[in-house]
Amino acid sequence: MNDLKLAALGKNNKTTIKVGHINVGQDFVLIAGPCSVESEEQVSEIAVAVKRAGANMLRGGAFKPRTSPYSFQGLGLKGLKILKKAKEQTDLPVVSEVLDPRDVSWMCDYVDILQIGARNMQNFSLLKEVGQVNRPVLLKRGMYSTISEWLNCAEYILKEGNPNVILCERGIRTFETYSRNTLDLSAVPAIKELSHLPIIVDPTHATGRVSLIPSMSLAAVAAGADGLIVEVHDKPEEALSDRGQALTPEFFSRMAKKIFDLRDFMEKQN
Amino acid sequence: MNDLKLAALGKNNKTTIKVGHINVGQDFVLIAGPCSVESEEQVSEIAVAVKRAGANMLRGGAFKPRTSPYSFQGLGLKGLKILKKAKEQTDLPVVSEVLDPRDVSWMCDYVDILQIGARNMQNFSLLKEVGQVNRPVLLKRGMYSTISEWLNCAEYILKEGNPNVILCERGIRTFETYSRNTLDLSAVPAIKELSHLPIIVDPTHATGRVSLIPSMSLAAVAAGADGLIVEVHDKPEEALSDRGQALTPEFFSRMAKKIFDLRDFMEKQN
Amino acid sequence: MNDLKLAALGKNNKTTIKVGHINVGQDFVLIAGPCSVESEEQVSEIAVAVKRAGANMLRGGAFKPRTSPYSFQGLGLKGLKILKKAKEQTDLPVVSEVLDPRDVSWMCDYVDILQIGARNMQNFSLLKEVGQVNRPVLLKRGMYSTISEWLNCAEYILKEGNPNVILCERGIRTFETYSRNTLDLSAVPAIKELSHLPIIVDPTHATGRVSLIPSMSLAAVAAGADGLIVEVHDKPEEALSDRGQALTPEFFSRMAKKIFDLRDFMEKQN
Amino acid sequence: MNDLKLAALGKNNKTTIKVGHINVGQDFVLIAGPCSVESEEQVSEIAVAVKRAGANMLRGGAFKPRTSPYSFQGLGLKGLKILKKAKEQTDLPVVSEVLDPRDVSWMCDYVDILQIGARNMQNFSLLKEVGQVNRPVLLKRGMYSTISEWLNCAEYILKEGNPNVILCERGIRTFETYSRNTLDLSAVPAIKELSHLPIIVDPTHATGRVSLIPSMSLAAVAAGADGLIVEVHDKPEEALSDRGQALTPEFFSRMAKKIFDLRDFMEKQN
Repeated sequence: MNDLKLAALGKNNKTTIKVGHINVGQDFVLIAGPCSVESEEQVSEIAVAVKRAGANMLRGGAFKPRTSPYSFQGLGLKGLKILKKAKEQTDLPVVSEVLDPRDVSWMCDYVDILQIGARNMQNFSLLKEVGQVNRPVLLKRGMYSTISEWLNCAEYILKEGNPNVILCERGIRTFETYSRNTLDLSAVPAIKELSHLPIIVDPTHATGRVSLIPSMSLAAVAAGADGLIVEVHDKPEEALSDRGQALTPEFFSRMAKKIFDLRDFMEKQN
Repeated sequence: MNDLKLAALGKNNKTTIKVGHINVGQDFVLIAGPCSVESEEQVSEIAVAVKRAGANMLRGGAFKPRTSPYSFQGLGLKGLKILKKAKEQTDLPVVSEVLDPRDVSWMCDYVDILQIGARNMQNFSLLKEVGQVNRPVLLKRGMYSTISEWLNCAEYILKEGNPNVILCERGIRTFETYSRNTLDLSAVPAIKELSHLPIIVDPTHATGRVSLIPSMSLAAVAAGADGLIVEVHDKPEEALSDRGQALTPEFFSRMAKKIFDLRDFMEKQN
Repeated sequence: MNDLKLAALGKNNKTTIKVGHINVGQDFVLIAGPCSVESEEQVSEIAVAVKRAGANMLRGGAFKPRTSPYSFQGLGLKGLKILKKAKEQTDLPVVSEVLDPRDVSWMCDYVDILQIGARNMQNFSLLKEVGQVNRPVLLKRGMYSTISEWLNCAEYILKEGNPNVILCERGIRTFETYSRNTLDLSAVPAIKELSHLPIIVDPTHATGRVSLIPSMSLAAVAAGADGLIVEVHDKPEEALSDRGQALTPEFFSRMAKKIFDLRDFMEKQN
Repeated sequence: MNDLKLAALGKNNKTTIKVGHINVGQDFVLIAGPCSVESEEQVSEIAVAVKRAGANMLRGGAFKPRTSPYSFQGLGLKGLKILKKAKEQTDLPVVSEVLDPRDVSWMCDYVDILQIGARNMQNFSLLKEVGQVNRPVLLKRGMYSTISEWLNCAEYILKEGNPNVILCERGIRTFETYSRNTLDLSAVPAIKELSHLPIIVDPTHATGRVSLIPSMSLAAVAAGADGLIVEVHDKPEEALSDRGQALTPEFFSRMAKKIFDLRDFMEKQN
C-alpha cells in the first residue's frame, strides 16, 4: 500500500458504527434477507424468520443491478416501503443498495445502511453522493479490484465527510468456475492491518453455491470478519433474482447458531 | 452466447453511425487526443497536430474517474468548452467521458460521442440515461467483464432507444504486469461474429506502454477493428493523468501513416 | 464436475492415510519446516522446535523449483540425508518435493510423503511415476488450475495404483498483489463435497505475508481443512529461498496452539 | 524486467535458428498439422496438404498431455515414426512435444524441434534436459505465467548450452469464456523489446474457436510475430484430441495465402 496518507488507512482507533442497537466493528453483524424485495408478505415472513434465527439486520434489494436489461429490475420505491414496514415489525435495521446518485438523498428516509454494490465500487459520482449524507455505507469490493483500489473508494466517501464506511468482501473474479467467484478471505486480515474500518463478508455472492456457504461463513469468522451478509429466501427456487443461491430460513437458523458459537469462542481466545 | 435474443446480437445489417464526415463502422476511425483536458492551448495544439497526422476525431477527458480522490478530477464544464472550441478550430468531432447520469443531457451540447468508461460499464443508471439521448455512445469494455456482459450493457442503451453504440476493447485485467492490462484482441472477431455493432480498440489503456502501442494498433487493424482511440500529449511526461503512456504528436504521426496503409491493404484483400 | 466417473470422486468412504503415528484425513496434520534444507544444524534445530510447538510432520525442500536458474536449486541428495537424520532425531515423518520422474523411486528411501509442487501439478510423467510407488503423495493445486483439473491430476496417481493422495490448496494466481497469490479456501468444502481425499492448506505460499498466515490458518481449520503446511525458519530473513515469508519458531508455537484449540472446538461442534 | 542479466535478454543480435531450409527468426514460419498423430495415412495426407498450402513445418503430437488420464495419450514412439515418414515424404521439418526428461535424448532422432508445452513450461528437469541436446526447442508460455517467468524458463535452456529457443505465445487463462484462453498478443512486441529470441503464436489453443483463428493469425503477423503454429485436421470433428478446433486443409489454405500476403506487405513497410 504505497498510497498517499489516506484517512482510510491506519489500523489503530478502529471505527465503530452505531446502527440501531448494534455497534458495527464491535458487535458481530449478521445481515440476512432476500436478494430482491418481491412482496410485503415475502419480506415480512423472511424478516421475522431471520430475526428469530439470530440475524440483527435485514437486507433486501429494491433497485437491482442486473446483467440483462430484460431481467427483473426491482420494485424501487415500493420495495423500500416494504423494507421500512418490515423494520417497524421486527426492529431490524435495513440495508439496501443504491444505484443512482439522484436516489441517495431520499433513500435515507427508508434505509439504515446504503449499500454500494460491486459493479459500482468505482462509480465515483455515487461515492461522492453517499459521502454527503449521514447514513453508514456498506461498500462492496469490486469483483475486479485490488485492496488498494477498494480503500481508495472508501476514501472518496470519507473525504466528503461521511466516516461510517463498512467494507464488504464478496469474492473476486478468477478462472475458477466451480464457485461463482473466488472468496478472497485474505482481504479480512489485510484490511485489519491496513485500516480502521470494519469489514464483513458476503459468502452468498462469493460462492454462488448453498453448499459452500456454511464453511465459508465459519472461515470468515475465524479470519476475524466483523460480520456476514447472507441471502435468505423462503422459496429459494422461486426467487426473482439469484435463484437457488439463497438459504432457506431453517438452513440459515442452523448456520447462524454455529456462527455465533464460533464467534464467542474466538472472542474468548483473544 | 446463450442470451435471450438481444437487439445487440446478429452479425448482419452492420450498424454504421454518422459522426461529422465519418461513418463509423464503415470508415476507419482514428480518435486521438490527451487523456485529460488541461488547458485551451494544450488541446488546441494537440488537436491541430493529430488532425494533421490523420486523426479524424478528438478525444479529451473533462470528467476523470481517478483511483484516488486526491488525484486531478478534470476541468469539468470548463474542459468541455475547451473541447468545443477545438472542434470549431479543427472540425474534428469530440469524444468525452460522462460519469454521472445528471450530466448526460447537457453534455450533449458539447460532445459528439459520449464515452462510458470501463469502470462504469455496468453503471446501469448511466447506461439508461445515455440510451435516451441522440448522441452516439462509445461503450468501453469493463476490465473484468465478459463479452456477453458487455453486449448486455450495449443492450441497456439500445433498449432505451439509442441504436448508436460503438464498442471499445481496452484490455482486461489479468495477472500479467508487464502491460497495464491484457489487450484481448480476440474480442474484435468475436464481436464481429456476434453483433452488428462497430468495435474499436484502445491500445493506450490496454498496454500502458508507449513501446507496445504501434504493434498493438497494427494488430487491431489486422484483426478487423473499425478504429482506434489513442492518447496523444504534447508533453507526455508532464500530463496531469496517465503520465508517460501518451504518444507525442510526432510519434503518433508516424504510427498513423502505418495504420492507414495497413487498413488500405486489408480493405483491398477482401 | 461433469467428468467421467473418476476414482477420486465420491464424498463417502473418506480416505485416511497412515503416516507414522498420524492418520491423515482423521487426525489434524500440522506440517512445518524450512522452505529449503540448508544445513544439518538448521534442519535439526527447526525440527526440534516445530515438534515442541505441536507440528506432527516435518517439511523441507531438497530439490527446489526456482523461477531463475541462477537461484539456489537445493542440496539434492545431501538435503534428503539431512531430513532423514532429523526424522531419526524427532520421529517426525518427512515431506519433500520431487521434481523429476527419475528421482521418485530412490527418494522413497528418504521421505514419508512425496510432494508434487504447484508448477508440476500437470507434469503427467511425474504423476504416473508417483502413482507406482507406495508412498503417499501431497498434490499441490496448480496456481492456474481449476478444481476439476486438480482432481483429474489426482486421478492420474490413483489410476496407477497409489490410493494415498493428499490434496493441498496453496493459492491461485489472480490480479491482486497485496498477497502473493489468492488463497481459495472455498476449495476446501468443494473438495469435501466432491471427493473422499483429504485436503490441507498452505497459507505460506498462498499469502506470502507472515502477518496474514495466522488468520488464514484459523480460517482453513474453520473451513474444514484436514491440516496445514507452513514454512518455519530460525532466521527467516536469511533463508536461501522464500526469504521473509517463513515464521519464526516462537511465532509458529503461538499460532499452533490457537490452531489446535480451534480444531478441538470445531470437532466438538460436530 | 528487473531480473539479473539473463542471456535471454537483450534485443540486439537477434537469434536465428536454421531448421531445414528455414531460418527461424528471419523467414516466416508456418507450422501446421494435427493435434495428435493418429495414423500414417492421416499424417501423410495432412502433411501433403499443408505443404501445398504453404506450411513450411509439420506439427503433430505423439505424447499428449491430457487433462484426464482416461483420454487418448498419444501413439508414442509409433507416432514419432509416422512423423519421420511424413518428413521423408514432404521434406517438412517436424515439431513434436516431449513430456518426460527420459525421452529427450532419443526423441532427437525423430524430430527437428522439441516442443515444451504450456503445462510443462516450469518443468525444470525437462528444461535442463532439452538444454543439453542440439535440437531447437519451442517453448510455449504457461497459461498462468508472466513474460518474466517465461524468459527465465528460456534461460534454463540457454544456461545448459542450447541457444536455440523459439518462444510461443499460446494464450493465458483469464475469466473470459468465449475463447478458450485469452491470446496475449502484446507478448509479441514485449518479447521483441526484451529479448533476441524469436517468437511465434499459436492461435488454435489460444482461441479454441475456428472462427477466431484467421483474424488472430493476421493480427499476430501485424504485431510482428516470427511465425504461427496451427492445428489442421482432415476431419476436425473426428479428431482424437482438441476436436473441433482444428482447421480443414481447405480453410487453412485460404488463410495461409492471406498470412503470407500480409507478411510480405509488413516486410515492405519496414
